[in-house]
Amino acid sequence: MSTQKALDDLESHRDDFIGRLFEFLRIPSISTLPEHRKDIGRAAEWVAALLRTAGLDARVIPTAMHPAVVARYRVDPAAPTLMLYGHYDVQPPGDESLWSSPPFEPAVRDGAVYARGASDDKGQALANLLALKCWLKSAGRLPVNVTVLMEGEEEIGSPSFAGFIEAHASDLACDDVLVSDSSQYRAGMPAITYGTRGLVYKEIELTGASRDLHSGIYGGIAPNPANILCQLVAAMKDPSGRVAIPGFYDGVRPLEEWERQGLAALPYDERAVAEQLGVERLEGEMGYSPLERVWGRPTLDVNGLSGGFTGHGSATIIPSRAMAKVSMRLVPDQDPGAVGAAFDRFVAAHLQGRCRLAIRDKASCAAYLAPVRGRGIRAARAAVRAAWGTEPVLIREGGTLPILPTLKQHLGADSILIGYGLPDCPVHGPDEFLHLDHFFAGVRTAIEFLDSYGRLEDQA
Amino acid sequence: MSTQKALDDLESHRDDFIGRLFEFLRIPSISTLPEHRKDIGRAAEWVAALLRTAGLDARVIPTAMHPAVVARYRVDPAAPTLMLYGHYDVQPPGDESLWSSPPFEPAVRDGAVYARGASDDKGQALANLLALKCWLKSAGRLPVNVTVLMEGEEEIGSPSFAGFIEAHASDLACDDVLVSDSSQYRAGMPAITYGTRGLVYKEIELTGASRDLHSGIYGGIAPNPANILCQLVAAMKDPSGRVAIPGFYDGVRPLEEWERQGLAALPYDERAVAEQLGVERLEGEMGYSPLERVWGRPTLDVNGLSGGFTGHGSATIIPSRAMAKVSMRLVPDQDPGAVGAAFDRFVAAHLQGRCRLAIRDKASCAAYLAPVRGRGIRAARAAVRAAWGTEPVLIREGGTLPILPTLKQHLGADSILIGYGLPDCPVHGPDEFLHLDHFFAGVRTAIEFLDSYGRLEDQA
Repeated sequence: MSTQKALDDLESHRDDFIGRLFEFLRIPSISTLPEHRKDIGRAAEWVAALLRTAGLDARVIPTAMHPAVVARYRVDPAAPTLMLYGHYDVQPPGDESLWSSPPFEPAVRDGAVYARGASDDKGQALANLLALKCWLKSAGRLPVNVTVLMEGEEEIGSPSFAGFIEAHASDLACDDVLVSDSSQYRAGMPAITYGTRGLVYKEIELTGASRDLHSGIYGGIAPNPANILCQLVAAMKDPSGRVAIPGFYDGVRPLEEWERQGLAALPYDERAVAEQLGVERLEGEMGYSPLERVWGRPTLDVNGLSGGFTGHGSATIIPSRAMAKVSMRLVPDQDPGAVGAAFDRFVAAHLQGRCRLAIRDKASCAAYLAPVRGRGIRAARAAVRAAWGTEPVLIREGGTLPILPTLKQHLGADSILIGYGLPDCPVHGPDEFLHLDHFFAGVRTAIEFLDSYGRLEDQA
Repeated sequence: MSTQKALDDLESHRDDFIGRLFEFLRIPSISTLPEHRKDIGRAAEWVAALLRTAGLDARVIPTAMHPAVVARYRVDPAAPTLMLYGHYDVQPPGDESLWSSPPFEPAVRDGAVYARGASDDKGQALANLLALKCWLKSAGRLPVNVTVLMEGEEEIGSPSFAGFIEAHASDLACDDVLVSDSSQYRAGMPAITYGTRGLVYKEIELTGASRDLHSGIYGGIAPNPANILCQLVAAMKDPSGRVAIPGFYDGVRPLEEWERQGLAALPYDERAVAEQLGVERLEGEMGYSPLERVWGRPTLDVNGLSGGFTGHGSATIIPSRAMAKVSMRLVPDQDPGAVGAAFDRFVAAHLQGRCRLAIRDKASCAAYLAPVRGRGIRAARAAVRAAWGTEPVLIREGGTLPILPTLKQHLGADSILIGYGLPDCPVHGPDEFLHLDHFFAGVRTAIEFLDSYGRLEDQA
């Protein structure tokens, strides 16, 4: 009854909500560029103002880097507390000439709004915040306790955010977290994401001679760090695509039978994916399906490679240095610290002192897995069913959301990811978009979620 | 008798010769920088003027790129004809702040002149040209027919020079070529270089997906061209340091017994070389000494490596492309075309279609070996013995001088390399130098060489 009123409120405010979405998207709150620091501040204030208009007591709280926006609403100390988490910062637009319309001037084409942040994450996060507005406007209260947390550093790896959450743990206490920073499985197939992969990111630098050498005069006697780096990287995988670093697979939790069956039931056209990427065929660890490999198996990829002369011509040098950035995606229950240490040991052992070695740790984050029978996911299923008229698929995500293990660690809270956008949206590329239908379906989903979350018992 | 007069003439013109050397070194004839095109012209004219002062009929002849200086002197149609070859262009000075004195303002310290081109090749080439002046001044004639050829493109790979030689083959006809573009084995050990290695230089570019991919979303299914490139490069050598490309060693001429003995007799401190390079130890193909590996065995080195994100931070991408520059130094009698084709076949076979492949040919040049019992080398030994008071060592060179096989191919002429500078001179780096004693010893060597070359029979 109250839910229907909230939904009615949404229907009568569609134009207003689109106007607010456009306002939000017009702020170029690019977290990685210092010249946009003011825009970061403007975006944070804009979010706080929106929440105040809705009737929440919102604060902009400084962190070591970009401010967080926090709002608390307590309806009943005995009721569960739901956190709505999102981020108001965005990626840089990149080459603006690749955009069909300016990245910070929202434009609607074929029912979708095009702008940086449309999906990632302003559009999706705003949908959840507007649900609070609909509830408070129509019912005068929220059905559960709510904490809002919007960060401004997500796109730069949240350098000060874990510390912020730890410092404000009692203020931020909650039972579950609703995150809309993922996507549907495909159009018409809304998804709840219950797991993400972790990440260990290393930079290896090998130094041979103290200067670049003439490859004629020294070819045959000088260690070549570029050749040696290639041998090292090649040794990290065996011919079956399995990572060959001893200890790498320690703790890997196999996919459960229901997961394998669920994955196998999802439509997946391997040929079409290969074609869309422009490759001859997909590849990876033998013995697993593509979705199992991306969601349920750890991987190792070189992200960058450099060394020696890379200009147009042909310098005949033996480079002094060569560098590789190597990242590993982890699954539950791999320990990022143990994987990083195994990696370091493997590299040192392989080199046998042929080159000087420096390894730099760039990132380390655990995978995350939500309890699929917990209140959060059950509430999410009911909400999606009600708002989209179809049963959601339960999926994992190959990427990494450091915020999820952080929230679990410091608040003890589990996260539920419901994505409203489409998986083929170029979230960090040009022409990022969000269908307005999906935006409104998102608001409806969050309205329903607040209701169902309040009514279900925790069985996790 | 005539030789002694020529040597006397040298002694009475030392200040004059140093003055001319400095004049030559002051011209910044950097062949790779278009803004120095005028200086290239000035240097060519300077060389021609010097030769005319000496009494030769010198011409500056345009090529497709930088002019050549050619002079011919015929004393007797029945006498052998010696070519003096050198180059008047120089490398860029690089970071001038690393020089102790300005690179184009010759400065004398501890008996050595410091300037770009001091050794490579203005100082050494000028020594040979001045010998002509001494002979003509004192004896009124040269003891043999002489052709002078000075090029202006050596430091940029002589792009138009092979064509020039072919087009002027009858004009440039000669029996042997004296080249002073190498060095002594070490101080007090003058050397005659009778062999150089060849070069095949390739650029491999691998393309996976048509754009950089998110390593979370695609890690496990997308071919990673950076990983695959590393596997490809690693497969090019076996654990013993031998090149594993089938057919690579076809035609390799083993070092002869006298060569192995000669190399073994040369002082070589492996520890000191490693220390000087700043590496733990030297490495290379098992079963050969360091000098055998550098002078008598073919090698393969990565010269450059790039792909993906190489900036300061940590982008989690699967790169769309990865590139390696790979060069191979060849020995007699490897066929550069066959080696290049074997390389291409190996790369394609290894990839098995996992990535799109582009291979770009950057250089292809055969090794060169002079007939050690020929008139040229016998004359060189006599000349060095007379000028330096010590028996020269016969050595090879690990680097590549494309001019040598070119002269052999188009003129049928063999080359003899006598170096006057020291091997530790930073010829392409800062503070390039030439000891003035070595400069004058060079003039004396060339004076003696003209004499001995004229008096010996050809026995090759």
